[in-house]
Amino acid sequence: MLGKLKVNLGERSYSILIGRGLIRSAGSLVRRVSNAPKVCVVTNSAVEKFYGPALSSSLKKAGFQVVTSRLPDGERFKTLGNIEKIYETLFKAGFDRSDAVLALGGGVVGDMAGFAASTYMRGIDFIQFPTTLLAQVDSSVGGKTGVDFMGGKNMIGAFYQPRLVVCDLDTLGTLPKREHLCGLAETLKYGVIKNGPFFAWLEKSVVPLLAKDPGALGKIVLESCRVKAGIVENDEKESGERAILNFGHTFGHGIETALDFKKMKHGEAVAVGMVMAARLSRSLGLLEAGSEKRIERLVSAFGLPVSPPAGISAKDVVAGMEHDKKTLSGKRRFVVVDKIGRAFVRGDVPKEAVLSACGR
Amino acid sequence: MLGKLKVNLGERSYSILIGRGLIRSAGSLVRRVSNAPKVCVVTNSAVEKFYGPALSSSLKKAGFQVVTSRLPDGERFKTLGNIEKIYETLFKAGFDRSDAVLALGGGVVGDMAGFAASTYMRGIDFIQFPTTLLAQVDSSVGGKTGVDFMGGKNMIGAFYQPRLVVCDLDTLGTLPKREHLCGLAETLKYGVIKNGPFFAWLEKSVVPLLAKDPGALGKIVLESCRVKAGIVENDEKESGERAILNFGHTFGHGIETALDFKKMKHGEAVAVGMVMAARLSRSLGLLEAGSEKRIERLVSAFGLPVSPPAGISAKDVVAGMEHDKKTLSGKRRFVVVDKIGRAFVRGDVPKEAVLSACGR
Repeated sequence: MLGKLKVNLGERSYSILIGRGLIRSAGSLVRRVSNAPKVCVVTNSAVEKFYGPALSSSLKKAGFQVVTSRLPDGERFKTLGNIEKIYETLFKAGFDRSDAVLALGGGVVGDMAGFAASTYMRGIDFIQFPTTLLAQVDSSVGGKTGVDFMGGKNMIGAFYQPRLVVCDLDTLGTLPKREHLCGLAETLKYGVIKNGPFFAWLEKSVVPLLAKDPGALGKIVLESCRVKAGIVENDEKESGERAILNFGHTFGHGIETALDFKKMKHGEAVAVGMVMAARLSRSLGLLEAGSEKRIERLVSAFGLPVSPPAGISAKDVVAGMEHDKKTLSGKRRFVVVDKIGRAFVRGDVPKEAVLSACGR
Repeated sequence: MLGKLKVNLGERSYSILIGRGLIRSAGSLVRRVSNAPKVCVVTNSAVEKFYGPALSSSLKKAGFQVVTSRLPDGERFKTLGNIEKIYETLFKAGFDRSDAVLALGGGVVGDMAGFAASTYMRGIDFIQFPTTLLAQVDSSVGGKTGVDFMGGKNMIGAFYQPRLVVCDLDTLGTLPKREHLCGLAETLKYGVIKNGPFFAWLEKSVVPLLAKDPGALGKIVLESCRVKAGIVENDEKESGERAILNFGHTFGHGIETALDFKKMKHGEAVAVGMVMAARLSRSLGLLEAGSEKRIERLVSAFGLPVSPPAGISAKDVVAGMEHDKKTLSGKRRFVVVDKIGRAFVRGDVPKEAVLSACGR
């Protein structure tokens, strides 16, 4: 085990385990937190191929009955209809309140499995085995679950904490490069919003991180989860500080909407969004030009985009943002930074400043 | 205002207001707990006809924008498909996290509106205006929300507390007699499981209660909510004491399942179920025969059934119970009483005792 973190949320507290080869020990790890007779592994066929057999075999050795619910692979299948399919699997296998759901996969699998677990019989135990860097550093921590609805991202969902999160670093080895970079984008965000020294460490560690050095990966998963856990502990339901986790996301969602969620991955759009948010912070007189440059340079060094694809104008991005549920009551609230390592929410941002930040 | 109760659940605490003419003051009452710009009234056409206009008009006077989501009337429409229709109404009207959902109706409306509110954008404010006696004394208190799925009652749902519950006693005047009696059945339950003196008061108040005397109705709504609130405060998520609220319900669900949820209303099945649960308690040597008789006599005095319809055997009821999610991990756990006013859960009840309790 490389690291263990506790997320302190009273009776909803849970641990995050980080290390190598953890899927092969899944049974004993899960048994420590759950007496469930039955476990439903929610996954997709791409992930199942690599890790499904080892996971199931370990769970069975620890005495769990295992059933599997397979989701189609991709964000466009993150729908209520597919949640119903998970319910059906649970219902037909006779799951009751004492049983558990385990997510094996990336963010889509985790969000959907978590939402199904939170609503089946008003909530049964939920365990996460995130297998992408993005899911390990972001979506598996914090209890946000849900699906898309009528074109709105995560419109339907629940805050529901897992009982345990297990980050097996070995799963990152099979991750396609674009997925890996998307995870690095979120990692970079934690440095920008909350941890300046970590940002500086990232600047010096571009080469090992791009080469997927296990030690470097362990460090970023641990540090990212630590930052996120600290923020979630203070503000579980996003009524205050938690909003800073959306740094770059309002712009990013605008880009994704303008692109109709095609061409760019979420993490890539967030990467561009962070460059825009840094630009906005500077133009509002909050952030020094040198810090803005450092953010853009690190995004670029990771091989992530710093501007939207050709054909998407600043106006397109702004139009895309207006549909974002995070713009409370139509007010233009943005997460900004006044130095690397400190973010906050700024309301009533002038429309011109937003438009200008969306330019190249 | 006849009465006001606080349900103490930390940051999820809320008040229950009980009185006459409260719908006409809805706007100012809701404004005290919510700054929502928009309110979506979830109701059905039968209820809306009586109270919709007065409610909307009062809400608008208090500055709320009002939209209405109409559900078809009846338990068989308590489905995920109809929850999606509520989501659609919210989404198309541009509801965001600062807006609210208000349930105007009986238990089905409240359960569905609450589930939609709990999952729209991971939870928005929820307010209850229960209009049936059953909803006022039972389903509007405690935060259980949900829908039926694949024949399982409330299989999908969430624990989600309202911000305010308003029980307008005037709505009970238009309630059909069978609905009124179903409410009395749940009221009687509170006496049996937790409040002996209240049970004795009910025995003396059959005539005014059947005549819908407002003073008597106010008393039973207040006392019932007080008992239920006390239990929910101790055990919000039903991991312990809250299970005693299921007194009569395991048998009742067995009867409902045997009848395919036809012929008998939920409250009627629970009435029979309570007679069976009392019989089980006596046959296990826990309850005196005299107390068992008092329970059966009061059920009967209210005009409620004390046995299943002809054609339903004890075996049918037992078979119906096996599908009940409250029978944890297949163990035969039942809520029993050892005197009127004290209930508890008993595990490993012999199968023969259960079968015998289901007989006439």
